[in-house]
Amino acid sequence: MAWPKPSRGDSPLAKHKGRSPGEVRRRICYHPIRSRGSVQVPLPPHLSQSEFEQACKELRGALGDDHVRTAEDQLEAYYDPYSPGLKERYAPSAAVLPANVEEIKAVLAIARAARLPLWTVSTGHNYAYGGAAPCLKGSVILDLSRMQSIEVDPDLAYAMVEPGVTYLQLYTFIREKKHRLMIDCPDPGWGSVLGNTLERGVGYTPHGDHAAQQCGMEVVLATGEVVRTGMGAMTGNPAWPLYKGGFGPSLDGLFLQSNFGVVTKIGVWLMPEPEAISVVEASFGREEDVVPLIDILRGLRLDGTVPTATIANWMRLAAGNTTRGEWYDGKGAMPESAIAKLMREIGIGFWNLRFGLYGAPRIVEENFKTVQKALSQIPKANISRAKYRRGQDMPPYHRTLAGIPSVDLMPLNWLGGAGAHIECPPVVPMRGAELLELYRRRTGLFNAHGFDHYCGLTTTSPRAFINTASIIFDSQDAEQAERARDLGRALIEDASTSRLGGYRGHICEMDLVAAQFDFNDHAAMRTFERLKDALDPDGILSPGKQGIWPKALRNAKRDQGDGK
Amino acid sequence: MAWPKPSRGDSPLAKHKGRSPGEVRRRICYHPIRSRGSVQVPLPPHLSQSEFEQACKELRGALGDDHVRTAEDQLEAYYDPYSPGLKERYAPSAAVLPANVEEIKAVLAIARAARLPLWTVSTGHNYAYGGAAPCLKGSVILDLSRMQSIEVDPDLAYAMVEPGVTYLQLYTFIREKKHRLMIDCPDPGWGSVLGNTLERGVGYTPHGDHAAQQCGMEVVLATGEVVRTGMGAMTGNPAWPLYKGGFGPSLDGLFLQSNFGVVTKIGVWLMPEPEAISVVEASFGREEDVVPLIDILRGLRLDGTVPTATIANWMRLAAGNTTRGEWYDGKGAMPESAIAKLMREIGIGFWNLRFGLYGAPRIVEENFKTVQKALSQIPKANISRAKYRRGQDMPPYHRTLAGIPSVDLMPLNWLGGAGAHIECPPVVPMRGAELLELYRRRTGLFNAHGFDHYCGLTTTSPRAFINTASIIFDSQDAEQAERARDLGRALIEDASTSRLGGYRGHICEMDLVAAQFDFNDHAAMRTFERLKDALDPDGILSPGKQGIWPKALRNAKRDQGDGK
Repeated sequence: MAWPKPSRGDSPLAKHKGRSPGEVRRRICYHPIRSRGSVQVPLPPHLSQSEFEQACKELRGALGDDHVRTAEDQLEAYYDPYSPGLKERYAPSAAVLPANVEEIKAVLAIARAARLPLWTVSTGHNYAYGGAAPCLKGSVILDLSRMQSIEVDPDLAYAMVEPGVTYLQLYTFIREKKHRLMIDCPDPGWGSVLGNTLERGVGYTPHGDHAAQQCGMEVVLATGEVVRTGMGAMTGNPAWPLYKGGFGPSLDGLFLQSNFGVVTKIGVWLMPEPEAISVVEASFGREEDVVPLIDILRGLRLDGTVPTATIANWMRLAAGNTTRGEWYDGKGAMPESAIAKLMREIGIGFWNLRFGLYGAPRIVEENFKTVQKALSQIPKANISRAKYRRGQDMPPYHRTLAGIPSVDLMPLNWLGGAGAHIECPPVVPMRGAELLELYRRRTGLFNAHGFDHYCGLTTTSPRAFINTASIIFDSQDAEQAERARDLGRALIEDASTSRLGGYRGHICEMDLVAAQFDFNDHAAMRTFERLKDALDPDGILSPGKQGIWPKALRNAKRDQGDGK
Repeated sequence: MAWPKPSRGDSPLAKHKGRSPGEVRRRICYHPIRSRGSVQVPLPPHLSQSEFEQACKELRGALGDDHVRTAEDQLEAYYDPYSPGLKERYAPSAAVLPANVEEIKAVLAIARAARLPLWTVSTGHNYAYGGAAPCLKGSVILDLSRMQSIEVDPDLAYAMVEPGVTYLQLYTFIREKKHRLMIDCPDPGWGSVLGNTLERGVGYTPHGDHAAQQCGMEVVLATGEVVRTGMGAMTGNPAWPLYKGGFGPSLDGLFLQSNFGVVTKIGVWLMPEPEAISVVEASFGREEDVVPLIDILRGLRLDGTVPTATIANWMRLAAGNTTRGEWYDGKGAMPESAIAKLMREIGIGFWNLRFGLYGAPRIVEENFKTVQKALSQIPKANISRAKYRRGQDMPPYHRTLAGIPSVDLMPLNWLGGAGAHIECPPVVPMRGAELLELYRRRTGLFNAHGFDHYCGLTTTSPRAFINTASIIFDSQDAEQAERARDLGRALIEDASTSRLGGYRGHICEMDLVAAQFDFNDHAAMRTFERLKDALDPDGILSPGKQGIWPKALRNAKRDQGDGK
């Protein structure tokens, strides 16, 4: 079989029966890597110890003692779990956990007065990109995980969620209410729906482009003003989560991958549960098969036959099913013969395509025939499918295609040790020949750094791929971690020479990626900065996020070339 | 047959064979109503005659004499064609027609120095909302109709267009290149693709939500800075028109229904030409049938069976096929018996649904069966369909459903005379019972003002309708025109009491609609104003657009309650 099949066969919630959603989350959202005791909790920049203590006292007054954390052991959850070597450099000074909009406003008022930098996280499970750690050392983490309200309209098929709501919680809520709705979730599903959407995260169903399914937003600006976007700008307007436009400009986009405000609520469109789902898997034996594969898939995506689809190279599937040592014990690139043996024995292709088909059974049937005919043009294509009806149980390895969140970590044991991964994914056009060229160049870079090329191509947009490239390493092996970071930077620099830009970036590479967006002498960044100064004049929100720094830190950061 | 069938049976382009696109547009984009000679060309606010003449001299130096218009007869095209009574109040002082981005930058530099208000239009055919006329009397029209570049990628199915490109030009370009692509166009198709998209215009195919299909934007800010959004912020990035996100916030939404910049180029996603199209029409005899109709349609929209669909009440179809005088010659509301006779004799329902089904023939067949079964639950539903194959000729009355632009004006002869219409469309949730209540209240308002209720419900978003309400009147009849305007305001005010907001607004009602967006004491408008001041500090771009005024005019406008 082609795709990784996690070992736990039960419903993701079965073993948590009777526990509260918060408890379930606490149990499954473990931080996999912790190296205790080595970091001095820093002060926020430009604040003396007594100024900081005064600010914390005020924060405790506003939120209660339990919701202001300053002790080292309380801050553990806010370090980057996959980059222990960067712990010191990106250490927060404190974390505050407001329960609602009023408390956020109180925190903002204290932060403005004290010039306290805040780093906003929803639940902070953005592991491959830095977890909950801030760009600016000494920032106070504004942790919104206590805000967990969910409203669902079963007729109009949408949810309104606060930042602390995880995919698992939303899924559970809908199941418990017996609404016939399907969510889309990333893999794994413990992260925040709101947080993932704001970062432009993706999933596996027709609603895989999370930002595209967002409708309606509530934001607290740094000034403390609460703004609702679109139709929500009119008090009580029922079309807020139904229609994306408003009267005048659309503000929602400003708060994606952004530090312009604190988003406290979003509307998310949901799908009616389809009558039938077919999970289609197809594998292709040769590296060069990716050329016709992509050109065929583009046609199927554009005409609507295939929704969101993912292509994985051999390594992406191997990393989920086996470890490198079982196939090769040398250093450097795995030889072709070992790769061929691995593919043959695990039963995977060099390229492996997977997607769902959704709808009435006859529609699914017709679409599958179209897919089968199209993909069979590629020699030795191996096409299979699994058919499910509404309400039918699915094996765990197909559940994300039905919007059922997994609670398993991404398999990271390829090199053994405390497996971690970092991501440096560019956005690439859906053209086969160009993709093969890029793939080969990136394979060269992976190999030159002593890693195997892990390649995922996710098409949530029908014209482009997000080219995920997970660099899997043992995070407790300092040399390996450093080498992984070097490869990450090399991949980012190589993408830029092909004029390809990053879909997201790790906190330590945000400046690097942002600097590559160079049209008209970085006009977009100048515009971001102008907007930052207008919306957050005190520069307190998430300094450095996506390379956007507040005025006071902008030039200093540029001069020292920090993070580049 | 149910829907209006324009009389011209030829291809929209047949009679223009051999003419250049510019010439075609000049011939078909006539302004239907002109009352000459009555308006004194005003000066821009705060400019003396000699200051204005100096500015015009500089503009002529930058653009050439031919492209700066100041004489009264040259400005005719820039008055609101449907509201001759408002001509004086919304008269421009001049019009400038730059040919490219460099010339726009030159115009902006002159405008900044002279504090000259500019009112940007793409082609200015936004008739029901004020045409090319500015909110602020004496503004200089920044007419971008000379910018007509088109690029199309047939594989990745997108176009990049400049503001002067009309739907007809884009359609012609694609036909001439023999690309197998389909566009979506509004009805009629002489307007600007870019302009319509920025105003969140809609069409009739699966790509009917024009703003949703926009990807990639080039904007000249008031400061003269040229910014490209998303992946276009990296020079030469091929994913600019392919993937909506970038690294950091999304700026595109800021320039929808906006005066924050001058948009000079957008990417527009196109559909591959489907193998088959079925145009489905269904009619329903009773007013209350709208309740199950909407609830059923919502399900079909949400599960993807039906794409963009339109519901028209009897009056919307009657207005296209006949005149009121043929059925009733009294004043006030048309009696039910006359409406019943009209419906019977023209062969239309009280409610009339229309949409296309697109794709492989077997998929279309299956979807039609689903639709038929669902709609047949409504007693006496009359369902028909017309089947077309790719390349097959279509009768003119079905062409917009295949993205073939019409060159016919919307039929406006219901009351005779120089027919005009104004629009006050709210966005309403797709819930049958609520809609019927709203419909009945709006019928009361139409009738109280002596008009027949014209109601269109367009669902480009699967959860909401844009409720178009065309008030058709004889624009040369001053009393009728005034009464139409009163009804427009009454409809806007009524919508607001139901907490429904406007999808667009006429220039004379922009302040009124904007003021209804009152959440948190108008927090959205305060945010718009903050962004306006940051991006256009001199306040030169389209003052008053969507109720957003530059700082210098903001308080003055508010104090005098202008436009309310």
